[in-house]
Amino acid sequence: MIYEGTAVSEGAAIGSVFQYRPGGLKVEETFINKEKIEENIRAYQDVLKKAEEELQALTQDTDLDEEQKKIFQAHIDIVRDEEMGQEIEDEIRENLLAPECAVKTVYERYIEIISKAKDALIRERAADLKDVSLRIIRLLLGVEDNSLASLPGDVIVVAHDLLPSDTAAMKKEHVLAIVTEIGGYTSHMAILARNYGIPAVLGVPDILANTENGQKIAVDAHAGKVLTNLTQDQEKQYQVMRDVHLRKMSDMKQYLAVNPVTVDGTKIDVCLNIGSADKSELELEQYTDGVGLFRTEFLYMSKQKLPTEEEQFQVYKKIAEVYKERPVVIRTLDIGGDKKLDYLELPQEDNPFLGLRALRLCFEMKPIFKTQLRAILRAGYYGNIWIMFPMVGSIGDIRFAKEIIREVRSELEEEKVPYGRDVKVGIMVEIPSIALMADIAASEVDFASIGTNDLCQYLMAVDRLNPSVAKYYQSFHPAMFRLIKQIVEEFKKQGKPVSVCGEMGGNPQAVALLAGLGIRKFSMNASSVASVKKMISQLNICKAQRMSRTVLELSTAVQVENYLNSEFLE
Amino acid sequence: MIYEGTAVSEGAAIGSVFQYRPGGLKVEETFINKEKIEENIRAYQDVLKKAEEELQALTQDTDLDEEQKKIFQAHIDIVRDEEMGQEIEDEIRENLLAPECAVKTVYERYIEIISKAKDALIRERAADLKDVSLRIIRLLLGVEDNSLASLPGDVIVVAHDLLPSDTAAMKKEHVLAIVTEIGGYTSHMAILARNYGIPAVLGVPDILANTENGQKIAVDAHAGKVLTNLTQDQEKQYQVMRDVHLRKMSDMKQYLAVNPVTVDGTKIDVCLNIGSADKSELELEQYTDGVGLFRTEFLYMSKQKLPTEEEQFQVYKKIAEVYKERPVVIRTLDIGGDKKLDYLELPQEDNPFLGLRALRLCFEMKPIFKTQLRAILRAGYYGNIWIMFPMVGSIGDIRFAKEIIREVRSELEEEKVPYGRDVKVGIMVEIPSIALMADIAASEVDFASIGTNDLCQYLMAVDRLNPSVAKYYQSFHPAMFRLIKQIVEEFKKQGKPVSVCGEMGGNPQAVALLAGLGIRKFSMNASSVASVKKMISQLNICKAQRMSRTVLELSTAVQVENYLNSEFLE
Repeated sequence: MIYEGTAVSEGAAIGSVFQYRPGGLKVEETFINKEKIEENIRAYQDVLKKAEEELQALTQDTDLDEEQKKIFQAHIDIVRDEEMGQEIEDEIRENLLAPECAVKTVYERYIEIISKAKDALIRERAADLKDVSLRIIRLLLGVEDNSLASLPGDVIVVAHDLLPSDTAAMKKEHVLAIVTEIGGYTSHMAILARNYGIPAVLGVPDILANTENGQKIAVDAHAGKVLTNLTQDQEKQYQVMRDVHLRKMSDMKQYLAVNPVTVDGTKIDVCLNIGSADKSELELEQYTDGVGLFRTEFLYMSKQKLPTEEEQFQVYKKIAEVYKERPVVIRTLDIGGDKKLDYLELPQEDNPFLGLRALRLCFEMKPIFKTQLRAILRAGYYGNIWIMFPMVGSIGDIRFAKEIIREVRSELEEEKVPYGRDVKVGIMVEIPSIALMADIAASEVDFASIGTNDLCQYLMAVDRLNPSVAKYYQSFHPAMFRLIKQIVEEFKKQGKPVSVCGEMGGNPQAVALLAGLGIRKFSMNASSVASVKKMISQLNICKAQRMSRTVLELSTAVQVENYLNSEFLE
Repeated sequence: MIYEGTAVSEGAAIGSVFQYRPGGLKVEETFINKEKIEENIRAYQDVLKKAEEELQALTQDTDLDEEQKKIFQAHIDIVRDEEMGQEIEDEIRENLLAPECAVKTVYERYIEIISKAKDALIRERAADLKDVSLRIIRLLLGVEDNSLASLPGDVIVVAHDLLPSDTAAMKKEHVLAIVTEIGGYTSHMAILARNYGIPAVLGVPDILANTENGQKIAVDAHAGKVLTNLTQDQEKQYQVMRDVHLRKMSDMKQYLAVNPVTVDGTKIDVCLNIGSADKSELELEQYTDGVGLFRTEFLYMSKQKLPTEEEQFQVYKKIAEVYKERPVVIRTLDIGGDKKLDYLELPQEDNPFLGLRALRLCFEMKPIFKTQLRAILRAGYYGNIWIMFPMVGSIGDIRFAKEIIREVRSELEEEKVPYGRDVKVGIMVEIPSIALMADIAASEVDFASIGTNDLCQYLMAVDRLNPSVAKYYQSFHPAMFRLIKQIVEEFKKQGKPVSVCGEMGGNPQAVALLAGLGIRKFSMNASSVASVKKMISQLNICKAQRMSRTVLELSTAVQVENYLNSEFLE
């Protein structure tokens, strides 16, 4: 059988299915037989030991960083807590609750009390209690651990959808390919997959129902196909396809070390988009001119609670120190829209992409926003850090955000905490209104970066994740290039740098056109660095300028794409 | 008690609450006692008579048009249907079903059969069967008729929300004021209320729970307040407030007949936004220069099924004949987003405002779209009709829509059906991308109209109905005026007219600024005609140009509003 979807991250794979179905631990109210009390208490105690063993193993896991290990150490303390343990046994003995119900009841009692604590540090412990209770209940119910943190060898992950919080703990090196039922080219899953070079086909309807755990399938993430019931020929064919792709990737790698200068001598900065300070994210550090976009929301999504100022500071500082004098652009928290935090309740909205997200949400949660700004400014002491605000719609937004930075600065000043006094402040240009105000915006900030994904979404009024309007989402529409031209011109006039950090920043043809419009800095996922450097090193900037002038006069996205294909025909 | 909300349509009222709670006819499976069979059959037959009486009364109702009366006549035939009647009695007699269950069972059986018919005309009868069954069940259950079509005298309508389909049948002349729990200034309810000059306060949380049917309350739709438990003083105060407002309205009326020419002699066209061909909608016909926006979706929303070509043709023709040589701009079906049709299932979307709506949806439902285009083109034979497409995002959209018009024309040509050969074809400019392509768009169409509501929504990435981001929806933002300037200039260059038909077109201060930018045609709700004409007749176009130049250089919406207030200070 062949199932079709959207290829969002090139490559091919053949391997076993790992079905990821999050949630689903259902505890029904169950009572035990009076005569089986002791038996059940023994079962509970056995499971406690198992839970502790699992957690011990995690504290030894070399893939985890120290911070994560500390959390699991804390979980061991919770498992060992005598007071809770006694209460659980009492519930079994006196109220005849089945062990899983007893655990649920007692933990929920504690979670409720703790959630009301005045001290935020104590409140945050509720997430840990929740986590431990789920582990014990899972073991009591004998349900297999089905999280992406513990994959059984190299697998093809199949899921309905993968949220950023699901993938934060995913063991990427064991993932041969990703297949999901929903999602499209610019979903976060797609960006992540490209980032790690994992082949991915998204938007394959009913693929969960049509595959089984452990079944051998093939994924063709060039054509957007998933194959089951493979013939021997097909097995061979996909093995070859995978090898060819891996070879092409490694051929491309020769361009990694190339200095990104056009044939006529224009230097273009090639920077990285990253989501953490993990070693794997910074592998290409030596080949890049800086970090053009640090998506800090992943710091918030990979934990069960808000990261503290200190935790954030350590991450930002680490990156700043790695990149030394090269700029590291840190985008402030960008949640809302399609990005949620488990532990933070956000309002339900009819149109979340047009709602309370990113900077707007930060304005509503000023303490959380200030904590992040403190961490960024403090890290600025150790390197060349730039702060960038997402979802800026008006000059008023800029002024209000700068006012909060001033507040934070003067607090740090008063507390005599060292911080970066020359940290630059800039904005994402992703809402059309601020693009039209580029002249005034440029005088208010130090730099800008164009977020082409959201800019295209709003410019064309198309939800970039909605497959039924996918054909209206046209990032190569001439209107995009016209608007970008206005932005670049206004910022240039005032000598303020403007870069591109959306998906187009990692697309070689788009990079050529945008360089023609005057962009001199691009930020992209690791997987695009080699191909963008290749394009730049073969590009003539005069040709790029001529091409961009042509594109500005074309009528449709299709015309632009055809024109580019003809120009770059090899 | 005072409850606060958003005043969306000026005025004041004092009167009795009419709580509108749509839906809620629950039929539970109930069986009757064997000995009560005949009693129940008699009860059923009595109700049949009552249903027929109600329907007879409706066919005599002078407020309804002929088309609506015909529908009720058809409903009488259904009530009298002997075959269905027999089957219902059989269900009571043989299966001991309670009468309401018997009615539900039998009608649903027929509805299912009819829904599968190949002939669309037969399929459409399903909605009538549904309607009749609800009437009979309501009478059997002894539930009061709580629809807005039968208001008990003059009332203040209180509801959670009012959908366009709810208000289509509303007896507007009996509505003193409207109060809802959700909705904001640019919701369709708000537009409708302003259109009819009905005072309205929307977004008053829990007002249904805090009022009772028949309770006397006061509504202050200047300050956005709803008052219950009125003192005698308050009663007097609100009576006075209402009188003052009505007097102000009637004072304003002197401007209705004014010729909208500026003091320095520039003629500005003042046109109407309408939603039907009802007499009440066309009351200001003699004072207006045309229809600038006919929102045809109301034709679709006020019925339980798709309007036929003939029904639409009659409506369009009627308006064209009333307006004679003056242009009547008919916007093609604009549903999706927040506008739904009961009888047409649309996909659930995460961000419906960025989804499959308006023209995009029409492209997917080509037969429905072509039926409307046929009706419009045919009506074009009888007057000066212009076709306008909503939600145009690209030149590709324009070309595809024009292609469908060509198809329809040649079909009419072949069938030798008379149609308007010189019907103009234009677009709404409400998606930023098409505004940026105005030069090319102007060469493709005959005219454009700027829809400021959606344009602002997309330009600033703000859901205009979401109260938590209301402060980011700034229609007086300088970016709006900068973009509108670009559109006007490009269309002027090619001698193509461009008007404004969104909410800003009915705001006197906005009209002054937009006239300064070169707009010479505005379309608005009836309630704004007098105040806009007053502004125009007192405006100096040189001053308007100076003002618009100033505004283009300002930084924020607040600055623009302050500047306008100072310029128009009396």
